[in-house]
Amino acid sequence: MRASRPAVHPVEAAPPPPAAAAEGPEAQVEGAAHPRGVRMKDPPGAPGTPAGLGLRLAQAFFAAAALAVMASTNDFPSVSAFSYLVAAAILQCLWSLLLAFVDIYALLVKRSLRNARAVCIFTIGDGITGTITLGAACASAGITVLIGNDLNICAENHCASFETATALAFISWFALAPSCILNFWSMASR
Amino acid sequence: MRASRPAVHPVEAAPPPPAAAAEGPEAQVEGAAHPRGVRMKDPPGAPGTPAGLGLRLAQAFFAAAALAVMASTNDFPSVSAFSYLVAAAILQCLWSLLLAFVDIYALLVKRSLRNARAVCIFTIGDGITGTITLGAACASAGITVLIGNDLNICAENHCASFETATALAFISWFALAPSCILNFWSMASR
Repeated sequence: MRASRPAVHPVEAAPPPPAAAAEGPEAQVEGAAHPRGVRMKDPPGAPGTPAGLGLRLAQAFFAAAALAVMASTNDFPSVSAFSYLVAAAILQCLWSLLLAFVDIYALLVKRSLRNARAVCIFTIGDGITGTITLGAACASAGITVLIGNDLNICAENHCASFETATALAFISWFALAPSCILNFWSMASR
Repeated sequence: MRASRPAVHPVEAAPPPPAAAAEGPEAQVEGAAHPRGVRMKDPPGAPGTPAGLGLRLAQAFFAAAALAVMASTNDFPSVSAFSYLVAAAILQCLWSLLLAFVDIYALLVKRSLRNARAVCIFTIGDGITGTITLGAACASAGITVLIGNDLNICAENHCASFETATALAFISWFALAPSCILNFWSMASR
């Protein structure tokens, strides 16, 4: 059965075109670091790129900061929404750190993460953690506004800590959104 | 605005190829209903399909129901999150009704809504209204749980109405999510 065609033909190596030589030594060094056919062109922010790793580390950092600020108050377990924020921040932090390690591995071995199944798992996980983080941040924001603006009982509560933790959770969600959109785009456009 | 492409071209009917004739009369009837190259196959739930129209009507109905239930309580303006839910439900209802009318028009004139710019506008609008509706529903849920479970002051408040409105807003968001995902998929996969 001839289901596939040979990908490599034993032909003589052609001399490099003059255009590549005219680009100077920098283009040649880049061509040597990324051999053709091995690493596909990933958009910035996609998994396996330095920007994607930066987004993951930002998500994990802001989720951990939200967790730390919220857990530093002693009365957060009395409000369900704040406990939910702590749980969501832990989940977000673990998920982002896991994907950051995957990104670091892909960068170290110089491999692309454009595997269909991996991108599908990343997209579904990003969607679920993003929805949970956004929900927790919005619930905390609702309580914070109720305490601070509607009831004016900030004197008896740690309003500053609650507001900071909520804002950090929102920032973590804003860092997650590009990852999720890029993963979904890369899954749909193949 | 060219929001749709013509579904019927005044070209001469070409004789069916021999392969189509061999497939039997059923294939010929299907071929006549969907001429090749004129109407692309829309997934169920995409804009311009009956399922897409049903999703839009469901979103608008549940958003309107959430709005009605929340507005029927006389003390919702005292809590910012409930006022935000009312505003989000109004926005969601208007957006879904607008797109439902576009779907009805597309179905009546039998035109496809796979225009690139239209799908991009639908996706961005769905994303924004979906985020706002989810945020409002989560904020209301946080307040509702605080009133009902944490403080146990349901006797002085309309807990049942608040919970019903929050649940209806969540259902409206669940009806919006497939539309948003399908639009984004159709935008990315072209």
